Amino acid sequence: MQIAIVYDSGYGHTAKLARHVAEGVARVAGAEALLLAVADGEADWARLAASDAIIFGSPTYNGLISARLKAFMEASTRAAWLPQAWRNKVAAGFTNSGAMHGDKLNALVSMALFAAQHGMIWVGLDLFPGKSSTEMNRIGGWLGAMAQSDDASPEVTPIESDLKTAAHLGQRVAEVTAQLLRGKA
Amino acid sequence: MQIAIVYDSGYGHTAKLARHVAEGVARVAGAEALLLAVADGEADWARLAASDAIIFGSPTYNGLISARLKAFMEASTRAAWLPQAWRNKVAAGFTNSGAMHGDKLNALVSMALFAAQHGMIWVGLDLFPGKSSTEMNRIGGWLGAMAQSDDASPEVTPIESDLKTAAHLGQRVAEVTAQLLRGKA
Amino acid sequence: MQIAIVYDSGYGHTAKLARHVAEGVARVAGAEALLLAVADGEADWARLAASDAIIFGSPTYNGLISARLKAFMEASTRAAWLPQAWRNKVAAGFTNSGAMHGDKLNALVSMALFAAQHGMIWVGLDLFPGKSSTEMNRIGGWLGAMAQSDDASPEVTPIESDLKTAAHLGQRVAEVTAQLLRGKA
Amino acid sequence: MQIAIVYDSGYGHTAKLARHVAEGVARVAGAEALLLAVADGEADWARLAASDAIIFGSPTYNGLISARLKAFMEASTRAAWLPQAWRNKVAAGFTNSGAMHGDKLNALVSMALFAAQHGMIWVGLDLFPGKSSTEMNRIGGWLGAMAQSDDASPEVTPIESDLKTAAHLGQRVAEVTAQLLRGKA
Repeated sequence: MQIAIVYDSGYGHTAKLARHVAEGVARVAGAEALLLAVADGEADWARLAASDAIIFGSPTYNGLISARLKAFMEASTRAAWLPQAWRNKVAAGFTNSGAMHGDKLNALVSMALFAAQHGMIWVGLDLFPGKSSTEMNRIGGWLGAMAQSDDASPEVTPIESDLKTAAHLGQRVAEVTAQLLRGKA
Repeated sequence: MQIAIVYDSGYGHTAKLARHVAEGVARVAGAEALLLAVADGEADWARLAASDAIIFGSPTYNGLISARLKAFMEASTRAAWLPQAWRNKVAAGFTNSGAMHGDKLNALVSMALFAAQHGMIWVGLDLFPGKSSTEMNRIGGWLGAMAQSDDASPEVTPIESDLKTAAHLGQRVAEVTAQLLRGKA
Repeated sequence: MQIAIVYDSGYGHTAKLARHVAEGVARVAGAEALLLAVADGEADWARLAASDAIIFGSPTYNGLISARLKAFMEASTRAAWLPQAWRNKVAAGFTNSGAMHGDKLNALVSMALFAAQHGMIWVGLDLFPGKSSTEMNRIGGWLGAMAQSDDASPEVTPIESDLKTAAHLGQRVAEVTAQLLRGKA
Repeated sequence: MQIAIVYDSGYGHTAKLARHVAEGVARVAGAEALLLAVADGEADWARLAASDAIIFGSPTYNGLISARLKAFMEASTRAAWLPQAWRNKVAAGFTNSGAMHGDKLNALVSMALFAAQHGMIWVGLDLFPGKSSTEMNRIGGWLGAMAQSDDASPEVTPIESDLKTAAHLGQRVAEVTAQLLRGKA
């Protein structure tokens, strides 16, 4: 079972989240995470088509996913949408922004719509909102994993609870994907 | 396998869609559809907790789900969210409005966010946009099934292709739910 | 100049925000705030039609405005939309939820779509995200004023910075409304 | 009074809409439209700062604005957001997609959020949904102007009613902008 993590990162914060999503994936027996940065504009369509799930990640800039992730989406129309190469794969999303809210929801909604257009199955978080800043889902989102970063190095921000939330999402996606694979007729 | 269809309907058009969703569900071996109108404000929480999937339906009024479906959502907080009674169930949505667009997307997004808060797994349409008004998904939505009704009786509107789209969603939800049930560890 | 504030409140937190929005309105010379709770389901359509701006407020429950505010919206279809009674009035929104994010954006987007359907002109916040919890817009939203409340009495939550943000929105709406009134041909 | 129209266009359909928006702007005495394509990635920030309103246009690809318009948004952060160069300007949006619905709403919502982050004032349509395909707003949207194009040359698609809707938006933006300019204290 292979879970692709397709992400963009401007300054390293979303890349750090992506690595924690991958760690969460790796907690599930038989699951392998494949980290793919879209920064170069060229995607590995063959490996994506061979993946069982794709998790999308992006900073939220201007209340929206990055232009680079959007360019990846546009390239996917010919490479994956027309042949319906991702139909019935599992999808999920994560995002990071400088503000606590930061209109992050719009970034995740855009990912979920994109996934729905590809006929994918969307998995969000199954976490109560954290009651303090040390608990998972401290920000309080469910459609995907949300993180908040201060204006500082990725070595210190986002904080541990956001990284754990990202890892939890990775694990959850791997678990649901494994269940779907086992259930194939 | 039981698929609940929780819907509101103002003048019968969404109710008609709900019945076609149920017909789609019934196409899948072993799947039974349970139609639940929220009009009276009282939900059958026990039967919902015992269902394997819940499909939400509402007219889009004012660019949003109906107040009655929203009241159902609010009642679910205590009845289903706190005990996480719907966690990992499959969810989907359908909606109807008088206009072709009608901001229907906002109604479906609201349902998907609600489902994500409950830890549910969201299934949309896996259909290309219809090339004519007689093809499924003539309206061109993916997060759920969209229908458009003229200012006329539910006997004549929405048209056949929208009803087929709704049935397709029901069938798809039942298929994914069956796969997840088979795959349970 | 009259600015109506139409709001719902479950436990008093959104009502407190509404009062601070009203205080902000009152900072502008000639502006009078009119607080209207929708809890009883009956709206004062005549006074709304006579207002120069309408600011909508709601708790975000289940990632969406309350059922009571939605019921008000539905009632407005006949009372205000058909006669286009609110066309070209200024509109704005505020919301409160228990979580920092809490999908509050979806509540504000739903209000903005509703206002657009009525032909209204939408005014958001003109504030940078707060750099600490004591600064206005600490949560980081722009489409409207966002607040976060702990599970405690409205006497202690939401905190001062959220109340100031709400007041700022009220003031801003009054200023833009005054400008539009002066500019009437 | 200058109204900038900042748009992206993949195959010429959105460019055609942009020209009709400009025609609508020109109907208002004293209003001049400035058409700016973002295709080259370089924006004329000085002329935008000198404009009284900015109307954004994009195709809806993958249920979202184009990557090129998003790249423009990202460049605006330093050029316009930090100095708050667009604060209190009027904003609006239009979009085109192949499907009737096509998740166009998400493109317009993303533009409206972007405008709100810049402290702009959002103007939508003040049109009832068209009752036939020859009437303005035949698609039924309000946050901005929506168009639908067949898989054909911009010479024949989108149809006349969509072009009129776009022109109506341009005119409306110019009228509201003129009113705000007259009302400046």
